[in-house]
Amino acid sequence: MWTLGEIAKHVSGVVQGDELFQVAKVATLQNADSDQISFLSNKKYKKYLAESGAGAVIVSSDMAPFVVNHAIVVDDPYIAYAKAASLLNPTEIKQVGVHSSAVIDSNAEIHKTAVIGANVVIGSGVKIAKHVVIGAGCVLLDNVTVKDSARLTANITLCSGVKVGKRALIHPGCVIGADGFGIANDKGKWIKVPQVGSVQIGDDVEIGANTTIDRGAIEDTVIGNGCKLDNQIQIAHNVIIGENTVIAGCVGIAGSTQIGSNCVIGGAVAISGHLSISDGVQLTGMTMVTKSISSPGVYSSGIPAEPTQQWHKNVIRYRQMDKLVERVKQLEKSNK
Amino acid sequence: MWTLGEIAKHVSGVVQGDELFQVAKVATLQNADSDQISFLSNKKYKKYLAESGAGAVIVSSDMAPFVVNHAIVVDDPYIAYAKAASLLNPTEIKQVGVHSSAVIDSNAEIHKTAVIGANVVIGSGVKIAKHVVIGAGCVLLDNVTVKDSARLTANITLCSGVKVGKRALIHPGCVIGADGFGIANDKGKWIKVPQVGSVQIGDDVEIGANTTIDRGAIEDTVIGNGCKLDNQIQIAHNVIIGENTVIAGCVGIAGSTQIGSNCVIGGAVAISGHLSISDGVQLTGMTMVTKSISSPGVYSSGIPAEPTQQWHKNVIRYRQMDKLVERVKQLEKSNK
Amino acid sequence: MWTLGEIAKHVSGVVQGDELFQVAKVATLQNADSDQISFLSNKKYKKYLAESGAGAVIVSSDMAPFVVNHAIVVDDPYIAYAKAASLLNPTEIKQVGVHSSAVIDSNAEIHKTAVIGANVVIGSGVKIAKHVVIGAGCVLLDNVTVKDSARLTANITLCSGVKVGKRALIHPGCVIGADGFGIANDKGKWIKVPQVGSVQIGDDVEIGANTTIDRGAIEDTVIGNGCKLDNQIQIAHNVIIGENTVIAGCVGIAGSTQIGSNCVIGGAVAISGHLSISDGVQLTGMTMVTKSISSPGVYSSGIPAEPTQQWHKNVIRYRQMDKLVERVKQLEKSNK
Repeated sequence: MWTLGEIAKHVSGVVQGDELFQVAKVATLQNADSDQISFLSNKKYKKYLAESGAGAVIVSSDMAPFVVNHAIVVDDPYIAYAKAASLLNPTEIKQVGVHSSAVIDSNAEIHKTAVIGANVVIGSGVKIAKHVVIGAGCVLLDNVTVKDSARLTANITLCSGVKVGKRALIHPGCVIGADGFGIANDKGKWIKVPQVGSVQIGDDVEIGANTTIDRGAIEDTVIGNGCKLDNQIQIAHNVIIGENTVIAGCVGIAGSTQIGSNCVIGGAVAISGHLSISDGVQLTGMTMVTKSISSPGVYSSGIPAEPTQQWHKNVIRYRQMDKLVERVKQLEKSNK
Repeated sequence: MWTLGEIAKHVSGVVQGDELFQVAKVATLQNADSDQISFLSNKKYKKYLAESGAGAVIVSSDMAPFVVNHAIVVDDPYIAYAKAASLLNPTEIKQVGVHSSAVIDSNAEIHKTAVIGANVVIGSGVKIAKHVVIGAGCVLLDNVTVKDSARLTANITLCSGVKVGKRALIHPGCVIGADGFGIANDKGKWIKVPQVGSVQIGDDVEIGANTTIDRGAIEDTVIGNGCKLDNQIQIAHNVIIGENTVIAGCVGIAGSTQIGSNCVIGGAVAISGHLSISDGVQLTGMTMVTKSISSPGVYSSGIPAEPTQQWHKNVIRYRQMDKLVERVKQLEKSNK
Repeated sequence: MWTLGEIAKHVSGVVQGDELFQVAKVATLQNADSDQISFLSNKKYKKYLAESGAGAVIVSSDMAPFVVNHAIVVDDPYIAYAKAASLLNPTEIKQVGVHSSAVIDSNAEIHKTAVIGANVVIGSGVKIAKHVVIGAGCVLLDNVTVKDSARLTANITLCSGVKVGKRALIHPGCVIGADGFGIANDKGKWIKVPQVGSVQIGDDVEIGANTTIDRGAIEDTVIGNGCKLDNQIQIAHNVIIGENTVIAGCVGIAGSTQIGSNCVIGGAVAISGHLSISDGVQLTGMTMVTKSISSPGVYSSGIPAEPTQQWHKNVIRYRQMDKLVERVKQLEKSNK
């Protein structure tokens, strides 16, 4: 339980109402109880303010008059909500030290403040820094480095030599540092090109469940500081991603492509290999990128859903465009 | 071994031939042996009936005259086959009780009829109901609930507070309840929005290998009773899916989208966030959905493959459509 | 350390310079040190030859005059590089025998030369041949067979009856042999169709991280010898893939489709079920395949990214093609 005054201080806001009002947890406007705090960020939900049972609401100043109970008034209610929710829901780490079932190589260095969960396997030369948490079932192969306060939730695989930055948060099922897809055709048979680079994950990076980031062929694959990656993303070998770039779920980025800083890549986007995408590029969902993009801005592709009958017709029309252009040419000729 | 009579009773069919004929297992018409049962559902495979070595075949009444050996005559041969195959291939659970290598928190409640496999890790407050099977390598974080007869095959991660319904079947590599992709941009840096909801999986749900279902931001992500999900699907936070909806592999559904009941979503479909898809919608494979769909029916998008040279031409034509329309306009003007 | 002469012999090349020159490892032209070997395969990087600090470079004969230090001259520098890198980076297996934390059923047969890592779980009837390596956290359910010198890196799940060929290399997070997506609609409810086939993985197959290959419905799913699969691929039940076919990341192949030999399938391609794709077909990235392809060649689909404003316009134009064709028809009529 935190008082409204304490929360307001944490989010740099001003209390409207009782500073000593006790808040237990966060909730949506629609379902909040009287000991809960909610927020209004998108003004189209303004109507819920009046009906809400929330004991307190985080709002911008223009919405403050419409709050029925207590309020915290801030510039950006969503940012303030994020901070309040972090305060009310601290990350709980119950365990301390190394679980007895963990299998740790004698040449690994585990800081005494680190937490190593059940059935974790840690290889030779691994370095685990202070306050790191390695959750149950994770496997860290040889020479992995995990820096201060990084957290691996569970069932994650870090292959040899992978480096994870400070405060990184990695979700279950991620595989970081598996071999890049390096093959060469030797008279009809594919032979393996050894992947001798590794992966560098920057500070404050978050990586979603079942995302895969391959090790570099010769040099490293690099994910910049502050990047946020969603689930089921595939990052191929030697991709380099700048700082604070955000990638939504199901994106695939092929080998050696460089992505700038502060990009926002929508879900299910596919990006070819050996491209360069400038800083500040935004790609909407399901966009297909086959060429480099040198200017910031928003880019898109893909034709959205329509009733299947109409789709069939349009696909046929699409395939007849060449003929249509020819017909227009004929008309132009005969019009001269 | 079951007799044809026993199988016919199980699938509500009528035996044509010997009720006491012994059946060992299921097989395809093309490769069946004399102690095996097959089925004919799609009549374009009728020719295989005459050639088949199957001891028995499940057929509809109009196909029965063409069966060489024994038959079971039913209304829907595929449904009857499914039931016969279940009878002949019961789920085998050899192990009993809790494996000695499992790591189980003292505050977990495991029903005495549940089976907990090797190297499973179970957190505090977890509740495992009767006849549940948790396969090798699964990790269940705190306060997970798994209801009667649900089965987790192996190497699955259920994050804190996830609820799994009765008779649910979850395949390896699934991650349920990892953090939703909640971030907010605080003056150029992305900060994390805590994900305090969880995930509810209904009764009789099946979830394919390496599928991920994120926990809700504030309230829960919900998968309705009877839903069937294939492999490598990504369900984002606060998605709500109705009952008996079927989703094929590689589908991505972005945050807060609501999918109705009895929908059929084809492979590799991508659905944007905050949409509402009505009951009974069918989406063909690789469809891109960017707007809500309010009527049942079949919807599609995407242009199928063509020889690359033709594709190049058509993409250029597509990009010149604007000019083409202009030319047609000119022609119309000069024709007046 | 290997001498240049030894490496040249291994890659069937000719030394230009000192045969006794010692090489420590591979590096890129741009970043190589004097004890490192690099290669030049794509001639557009020729300019880096002069600037490179590499002690030795693998080149074709026409590039040999431009090498500053030592060289190995070969026909195909990339193939030769791959072989040199394999020589300089042998797969290290430090562990021997079965790790004490592995849980192995008494009915499994493990060859004495096999290596079984920490926390591995191996079921009844499993057969592990000579020189196989099963990495930490892998789960092999009943009756799995792994042939000579195959290697499973870590956290992989092989379901019952899966067969893995010689020298196969499987990366973390793969799930092979989970149930295919077999369901049948029984009066509005989906019932499960038991998946009684399994999966056969050929010799010399490589399978990337988090790829899933489902078991067959009745007969087996088959991946041919020499196939190379990247990460996050989904192969549905009863897919059959010929020899030496290469599949890039994020591809989905639906049930019962047959893919020929020597195909090259680009990233994020989606292929419908029950199709037949001929030998020697190449599909560029993100192609949507809804019909069988009977001739070798290159096929594509998808419209690449453009600025969002232009995309909006083009989508509208696309949807008006029908009307445009109508207008052209009118013009043609009035022109007669």
